[in-house]
Amino acid sequence: MVGLQPISAPPPSGQRALARCDLLGSAPYSDDADGLFRPYLGAGYRATLDRIAGWMDDAGMSVRVDAVGNVVGRYEGTTADAPSLLIGSHVDSVRDGGRYDGMLGVILGIEVVASFARAGRRFPFALEVIGFGDEEGSRFPAAMLTSRTVAGVRDGFDLSMADRDGITLAEALAEFGLDLAAIDEARIAPGRVLAYVEAHIEQGPVLEAEGRAVGVVSAIAAQHRYRVTMQGMAGHAGTIAMHLRRDALAAAAEAIGTVERVGRNGPADLVATVGRLEVQPGAANVVPGDVMFTIDVRAGTNAVRDAAAREIIDGIRQIAARRDIILDVTLQQDLDATPCDARLTGLMEQAVADVTGTPARVLVSGAGHDAMVMAHLAPVSMLFIRCEKGISHNPAEAVTAADVEVALRALTDFVCLFERRS
Amino acid sequence: MVGLQPISAPPPSGQRALARCDLLGSAPYSDDADGLFRPYLGAGYRATLDRIAGWMDDAGMSVRVDAVGNVVGRYEGTTADAPSLLIGSHVDSVRDGGRYDGMLGVILGIEVVASFARAGRRFPFALEVIGFGDEEGSRFPAAMLTSRTVAGVRDGFDLSMADRDGITLAEALAEFGLDLAAIDEARIAPGRVLAYVEAHIEQGPVLEAEGRAVGVVSAIAAQHRYRVTMQGMAGHAGTIAMHLRRDALAAAAEAIGTVERVGRNGPADLVATVGRLEVQPGAANVVPGDVMFTIDVRAGTNAVRDAAAREIIDGIRQIAARRDIILDVTLQQDLDATPCDARLTGLMEQAVADVTGTPARVLVSGAGHDAMVMAHLAPVSMLFIRCEKGISHNPAEAVTAADVEVALRALTDFVCLFERRS
Repeated sequence: MVGLQPISAPPPSGQRALARCDLLGSAPYSDDADGLFRPYLGAGYRATLDRIAGWMDDAGMSVRVDAVGNVVGRYEGTTADAPSLLIGSHVDSVRDGGRYDGMLGVILGIEVVASFARAGRRFPFALEVIGFGDEEGSRFPAAMLTSRTVAGVRDGFDLSMADRDGITLAEALAEFGLDLAAIDEARIAPGRVLAYVEAHIEQGPVLEAEGRAVGVVSAIAAQHRYRVTMQGMAGHAGTIAMHLRRDALAAAAEAIGTVERVGRNGPADLVATVGRLEVQPGAANVVPGDVMFTIDVRAGTNAVRDAAAREIIDGIRQIAARRDIILDVTLQQDLDATPCDARLTGLMEQAVADVTGTPARVLVSGAGHDAMVMAHLAPVSMLFIRCEKGISHNPAEAVTAADVEVALRALTDFVCLFERRS
Repeated sequence: MVGLQPISAPPPSGQRALARCDLLGSAPYSDDADGLFRPYLGAGYRATLDRIAGWMDDAGMSVRVDAVGNVVGRYEGTTADAPSLLIGSHVDSVRDGGRYDGMLGVILGIEVVASFARAGRRFPFALEVIGFGDEEGSRFPAAMLTSRTVAGVRDGFDLSMADRDGITLAEALAEFGLDLAAIDEARIAPGRVLAYVEAHIEQGPVLEAEGRAVGVVSAIAAQHRYRVTMQGMAGHAGTIAMHLRRDALAAAAEAIGTVERVGRNGPADLVATVGRLEVQPGAANVVPGDVMFTIDVRAGTNAVRDAAAREIIDGIRQIAARRDIILDVTLQQDLDATPCDARLTGLMEQAVADVTGTPARVLVSGAGHDAMVMAHLAPVSMLFIRCEKGISHNPAEAVTAADVEVALRALTDFVCLFERRS
């Protein structure tokens, strides 16, 4: 098989994976001339699929684009038509995105297969690599559209929803050359995928802070998002004595303190954030009468999240009562935790330990990933790769070739361990 | 003199003063059809001046409109051309303003004179009533334009500044029929005014909370206004562990707590407010990276304000240092306290005690008034009148006839005490 590779092509490596992501980071693979923006089914997306298909082909895979525009490469196992170990992530990007978010996991999948193909190694299962078309909600007002289709979890896949330009999902699929009547064919039948493995940049600073190239994800966090309004009494900042005030912002500030304190005092996988806050009337010389803010609480398990959310909301109720503030708390988003498969996670820990020589760091993913959805179809495992300062969704997103090499070796090792323990 | 009054006209009273303010609270005395908006030199303003001039005339005063459009009524003393005791406030209103802010002080001045005129009473000084044309900055981007002119404190009186429609102050004055070359004639020569007395609604809740109809103002507050920016590090709310965060909003929330604590722990005349706050990026799932907020600190003396401001800023510096937040604090506004004249304040306290039978409540005005400016020309005294819930700059502004009657009697008594003690 090695002979099929042009003699000058560099072998699969972390370095090459990085270079491929970088190549795909600008036009014609981006719809923006200045930075990376690769919305689902756009022009940059099409160019990207073509390029990825080429690399898949080079790696010895047969390539197809499925009925919703996911690109899928297949490297057959020792028997024809065997179920697969599926490796993947997403190819779309947010506006002004980074080059590695999603794409690195797809390219690493190709590199894993390329490594085995070079060695002529086959497994009793196929290896498949998938580039999901939409994870970010990069074009339509819904996220993870394409993994939902693959996993058969089609809630939210609404063909009539439109992008910014008024183009519907149905129109975009048709324009891309896809057959609307065949969408269900993108669904993978249960049993055809033995495991789904996703490598992704951490998008957080934990691995960097602890000096680790990679980490193993134990779960994708449970999330609650609340919208809180506090209503006090607006008035003149010069004339209302302090003891007569019902200052909505002072109340909200105390509430923010509670959110932070509960977050800090909880387990390491708990995070609690007030990210948005708006003050009315919002003038320097007016005591605030109304404040709206959000609370985002995430943890590796529903139980930890729920306990923290309860403590926060109870605390805020007490603050509001003491300050004579009218409080409204609305739960806006409620996502259960997605535990990664325990057995696969153990194998991934083993793989990381094999490659790095130290026990793997296990952490919770605070961000959502296609693996959340794919867990409905198959057991899932995720590998995180250190990124600089935890920056993501930003052109400044950065990873090192050395770290990507570690990830590549760990994934390769994982496949071998998976074969042995199957 | 009584014979000059039509037999059917109601006598001067708090009730009549209130009715007059109410009459002036809508078209044609307002430039808005729906509520009260009476910008300086507008159509509603002209109609208002005509009506006030009629009431001044009825009260036995000679009336003039000065070179910047203030309306001035004069009730001569026992000798011709005597210096005056000047009573006044402003006739302009903010958009969606209340009917009593400013206007009540002008109308009360007329009622005071009308009372004495009915009784044929004259003093060794003239009584003058002034309705200042601009206190609010109701039309041009500067406040107290007309009292500045009267007091000879002309900083900020810039003829080239324009209103929303691009009409300059010079054009507005000319259109109103005023002679730009004669503007300096609006200035009152030092010595011609023995004292300036201003009655005004409190625009705060203190008198209501303490069950008092009126209060005596000891000073107009010193004020500092700061603009504070806190810069931390934005990031994903799901992926950045709590201990790795540099959350600008959590830091600002702690700072707001400090502002409130210092304000609450200080003397009763101290107020400290964060009225405006803006968060960047401001998304529910993003740890805030940048926050801007204002701090407004006011007190009856510069010393109290300065000590409080220092404690607040020191506290915020410590918060920023501890949280690794980049801090910038800019002093944007720095107004010295304007103490009311001690002797006049004593007389006003005496007058209030005479009328109410209880010692007067003395308080600091947290809001600015024409009296601040007039203090450059003459000793000043202010009387505050209770208003419902402290609401002002709002159509819901409300006072009671009984309270206005108390104010009228106190002002009348004040004039008599002033004569006796002169």
